[in-house]
Amino acid sequence: MDLPTIPLPEFSPGWVWLVGAGPGDPALLTLAAVHALQSADAVVYDALVDRRILALANENAEQIYAGKRGGRPSRKQPDISARLVQLARAGHRVLRLKGGDPFVFGRGGEEALALVAAGVPFRIVPGITAAIGGLAYAGIPVTHRDINTAVTFVTGHNITGDVPDDLDWPALARGAPVLVFYMALKHLDEITTRLIDSGRDANEPAAIVASATTSEQQVIETTLGAAAKCAEEVSPPALFVVGEVVRLRAGLDWLGALSGRVLDADPLGLSDARDAG
Amino acid sequence: MDLPTIPLPEFSPGWVWLVGAGPGDPALLTLAAVHALQSADAVVYDALVDRRILALANENAEQIYAGKRGGRPSRKQPDISARLVQLARAGHRVLRLKGGDPFVFGRGGEEALALVAAGVPFRIVPGITAAIGGLAYAGIPVTHRDINTAVTFVTGHNITGDVPDDLDWPALARGAPVLVFYMALKHLDEITTRLIDSGRDANEPAAIVASATTSEQQVIETTLGAAAKCAEEVSPPALFVVGEVVRLRAGLDWLGALSGRVLDADPLGLSDARDAG
Repeated sequence: MDLPTIPLPEFSPGWVWLVGAGPGDPALLTLAAVHALQSADAVVYDALVDRRILALANENAEQIYAGKRGGRPSRKQPDISARLVQLARAGHRVLRLKGGDPFVFGRGGEEALALVAAGVPFRIVPGITAAIGGLAYAGIPVTHRDINTAVTFVTGHNITGDVPDDLDWPALARGAPVLVFYMALKHLDEITTRLIDSGRDANEPAAIVASATTSEQQVIETTLGAAAKCAEEVSPPALFVVGEVVRLRAGLDWLGALSGRVLDADPLGLSDARDAG
Repeated sequence: MDLPTIPLPEFSPGWVWLVGAGPGDPALLTLAAVHALQSADAVVYDALVDRRILALANENAEQIYAGKRGGRPSRKQPDISARLVQLARAGHRVLRLKGGDPFVFGRGGEEALALVAAGVPFRIVPGITAAIGGLAYAGIPVTHRDINTAVTFVTGHNITGDVPDDLDWPALARGAPVLVFYMALKHLDEITTRLIDSGRDANEPAAIVASATTSEQQVIETTLGAAAKCAEEVSPPALFVVGEVVRLRAGLDWLGALSGRVLDADPLGLSDARDAG
């Protein structure tokens, strides 16, 4: 694959680029992210960044693991920020590579403010967030004209590791027909119970999508009420989606179709969907 | 820019790829999108796809405008779906290129179901959605640890062109601390009035971001109560964001910093933010 001329900014020594690596599939990397990988002197990466993506880095680049993952020893956030500052001040081109998008439950804002405090110049490179790109690989659109005009993204646990306690759950439950939770496995029982207690139907379609867009992707179609029992079947990272859009997977599971799944052109049972072609 | 070997799927004749072009900046194209542009025989594109992106298409590809934009004559959705089917059946590699992401208020699901009905094989390639990537170019993160554990994306008008009437506005207003509206300009008065009537504070920070990530990007920092008066200052497409994350722009406007803006390391007035570096 050769690329024609595209205006890409120069990655200058002493700068930090906070870059989203997307949900996993290297094909979903942005041109800016690839450029950063090829230019960086140091790559500070998270647990959720795919090995095939790190393999694109400049072979002279120092690769530094800054992952945080439930149950394992991990670097503390101030340590990571301090390391970014240190590397930049040493004159390196520092690529801070995060799974998904740096500004979607990614703590990119915190790290950037630490750079501002230290006088280190930086750039933000957005990435495809898992809730959108990951669900698309499961054949589940986060919005669909017949179903929803709003979608809410929620983190499954806050900074202390608990289910977020700052949310108005009854309002969350009614505010959007489609809800997508990141890092949902650990507290899936509590999340689903709260949603049902807040008025969502236990029979509503739901899905768990683990390791989205990777070769280990697993999709469990279930209901809001039955989802928590399925949590043991998969490993993190996993998304949890609640809403009628899950039914569209019967028609839109293009990845399954590559392996022979026969798709249903009318997954919602609307007659006019069959007339569109 | 040369690319090392990356596993990219073959774009076979008779297939349709529904591809997100991202918010505008060609640097935010995915590798899969570039591959599709270089391989396609026909590119069916929307109004919001940047010219610099179309310029990356294979020079032999037929470029077909399928845009829809307020007030201008436009193709109807069934016409677009029928055209995709026709092109695929003629043996072309058909790239359906949409601004942002095909599954985020992009009608990608509808077009894909029409392909299923016609027996045309397809693939979905997610793109960076404007609410995330566009706001990042304005220095506004959609989530930030100190502010929100949930964010809601809403379309500013539904299929009939009106403000969505299927929403529970009081729940929407309280369900997430940060709300981002797409295509928000036309009904900004009604949107802001409904949010204030539903209990959001008229003094809450808000911003309008027009032509996000392009050279014409405009950002207006305002409040929920004053935003509607600013709508005339910009042209579509525009995002509207409500929430405390807007205050972070004072620290995170990296694009402004490239032009000399001095950033504030403590935009929320939290003392410990200054200690992080």
